[in-house]
Amino acid sequence: MNFPNPFKINKTPNKRIFLDYASTTPIDEQVLKVMKESTSGGNFANPSALYSEALVVKEKIKEAREKIANILNCQKSEIIFTSGGTEGNNLALLGVFEACKRDDFIPHIVTTVIEHPAILEICKEIERRGGEVTYVPVSEEGIVSEKDIIKAIKDNTVLVSVMYANNEIGTIQPINQIGKLIKEYKRNKNTELPYFHTDACQAAVYLDIDVLKLRVDLLTLDGIKMYGPRSSGLLYAKTETNIFPILFGGGQEKGIRSGTENLQAIVGLAEALSLANNDRLGESQRLTSIRDYGIDVLLKKFPKAKINGSREFRLPNNINICFPSIDSEFAVISLDVCGISASYSSSCRTLKEDSSSYVVNALGKPNCANSSLRFTFGKYSNKSDVDALVEALSKIIK
Amino acid sequence: MNFPNPFKINKTPNKRIFLDYASTTPIDEQVLKVMKESTSGGNFANPSALYSEALVVKEKIKEAREKIANILNCQKSEIIFTSGGTEGNNLALLGVFEACKRDDFIPHIVTTVIEHPAILEICKEIERRGGEVTYVPVSEEGIVSEKDIIKAIKDNTVLVSVMYANNEIGTIQPINQIGKLIKEYKRNKNTELPYFHTDACQAAVYLDIDVLKLRVDLLTLDGIKMYGPRSSGLLYAKTETNIFPILFGGGQEKGIRSGTENLQAIVGLAEALSLANNDRLGESQRLTSIRDYGIDVLLKKFPKAKINGSREFRLPNNINICFPSIDSEFAVISLDVCGISASYSSSCRTLKEDSSSYVVNALGKPNCANSSLRFTFGKYSNKSDVDALVEALSKIIK
Repeated sequence: MNFPNPFKINKTPNKRIFLDYASTTPIDEQVLKVMKESTSGGNFANPSALYSEALVVKEKIKEAREKIANILNCQKSEIIFTSGGTEGNNLALLGVFEACKRDDFIPHIVTTVIEHPAILEICKEIERRGGEVTYVPVSEEGIVSEKDIIKAIKDNTVLVSVMYANNEIGTIQPINQIGKLIKEYKRNKNTELPYFHTDACQAAVYLDIDVLKLRVDLLTLDGIKMYGPRSSGLLYAKTETNIFPILFGGGQEKGIRSGTENLQAIVGLAEALSLANNDRLGESQRLTSIRDYGIDVLLKKFPKAKINGSREFRLPNNINICFPSIDSEFAVISLDVCGISASYSSSCRTLKEDSSSYVVNALGKPNCANSSLRFTFGKYSNKSDVDALVEALSKIIK
Repeated sequence: MNFPNPFKINKTPNKRIFLDYASTTPIDEQVLKVMKESTSGGNFANPSALYSEALVVKEKIKEAREKIANILNCQKSEIIFTSGGTEGNNLALLGVFEACKRDDFIPHIVTTVIEHPAILEICKEIERRGGEVTYVPVSEEGIVSEKDIIKAIKDNTVLVSVMYANNEIGTIQPINQIGKLIKEYKRNKNTELPYFHTDACQAAVYLDIDVLKLRVDLLTLDGIKMYGPRSSGLLYAKTETNIFPILFGGGQEKGIRSGTENLQAIVGLAEALSLANNDRLGESQRLTSIRDYGIDVLLKKFPKAKINGSREFRLPNNINICFPSIDSEFAVISLDVCGISASYSSSCRTLKEDSSSYVVNALGKPNCANSSLRFTFGKYSNKSDVDALVEALSKIIK
């Protein structure tokens, strides 16, 4: 493998091509504008105070909450603002676990083997605290079966947590079908448990996040994945959901999430979600076309390559592809030299000693776990990015 | 009591006087500038990724960490970035508790009765999880005795947590004396426990936060209290400190705090801390002069009024004063009508059903718990604010 000269590939070496939108998205200009406006004047006040400035902040937070509730199709009291997706998932899983745990009752949680580390690591913590977790496998297409999920439910199951779309391979899970079967289970058993949670961090920009249609009791969103503020996010928790806090203090967010509210993050998140909602259909179609073009030219150029995960049930912006015999890490670094930002497995995984993809491994493709690359598109992507990618890859992959 | 006409008091009705800097501080312009610069270009990347943009973000976070470590006089690896003071305190207390808890060992924590709710509510949670907590009382001056703290330590004490300065009455606690006695205790007993934590959120702008001089193992800071970004903060945790995460996921911050790092919040926090450090002496002197002027004219104008807490060991920016027979909440609302933003007890307390001040109550002044007002000054305060305050109060308090 020759290390390519980046100047030969990119005629304009300063122009970088970002193909890692699943890892993070830039903040939208309109979101930045709304955030900036919210820092002016007396808008820095603590909304728990009693004076005029505080009431203005409180009102702005209320408006943002209403805007979000309208998009999620829920009550505004069902929105809990958090510091991001990781905290939202922690609150959902640990919060339900702690609320349900009793001396004579060991709560059980059902999840899948391909969840984000910010579910799987929480599950490990739940096991450490004496809880039980069942990890349901997925098909070779990277989709969990709703029937397998229901089969895993036991009398002590308090929560089912299934991601809406996978962060590595972009596969879309059958959330509303699972929701439907859980509702039936609960009706038949005449029980209020288990609750149903979905980590929708990767999905929010592209898929419908109407919580009633999805039939979920809990849903996590993360601003950083949808052109919103960093350290912003929310957990939707249906009114009846029994949930215990994970951060204790001043009792904000109806006692469920202590800590002074972050006005800028909240209004920025509402704006980002609103933009995502307005652009959802058009942007999904546009990116689906880029993605499908990308998959087609990559498979044509590299006949031994194989797409990881379903092509049909897949986020519009995700290509995850196995190039047999390449080393993922080396390829990512080589692409970087060519001016292209890509990833293998997920960013979070690079912090681990074993950074191979447990998601690709779970598809029954252990040989691909260290030989796959993830390219995720976004707002500023276009077809010519695919062409540049193919050109770069053809220098790297012999 | 007549409801005053605000236009009679403030000749410029649009000019509001903010006297609640203990509740929150506006973001400094220089901090905003640094934050804004950090959102440009490829700086939105996820620092865990492997490409150039990510490495730039990683480097900027490293530089901010170094800048902060120099101010705190610690190693940069001892800084854990959080989403604010509440999270920092939760991580310190729950983190040490969970790290020390074993089936055959019940950890014990020593704290004071006047801590912020984001310590006391965590202590309640620790009791719920089977831990023990001793709440040490304070003198009528609002100061805890270092000897009382040491007396409360038992063989199973894993943590002592004492706030650096109180959020309501501004009294400064003898942190380095407590630290010295804890060190002696540990040397005599040949033990590594208890650790010593201080909640320094209120203190950071005015008092020395050199962790070696303070002799603390853990220290919490909050950006919102020092003209920094909202949802920013850090926990200093000495290298040897055994601490368990409270948020689980991608393993950021050496596994202690999962969640994608927030570059803007981190560089903004470093800048805010740096500004606070540079301005500390001058600003403390300036505000001490305003505070003392305020106390003198208030006590002269209202002879029955009494200052809550020590005048000597007190934050430069805090006046907390009891006006016998007034209703705090009504006075705060009346002051607001006069264009003045003030508070009674703390903002967080207004969320509780009983919003009387447990801090003032702990001074042995139960009659003042509902009749005290807190005025806290800051960067944009000056002596004329005190004059306007006295004029407004004289309309409200007969």
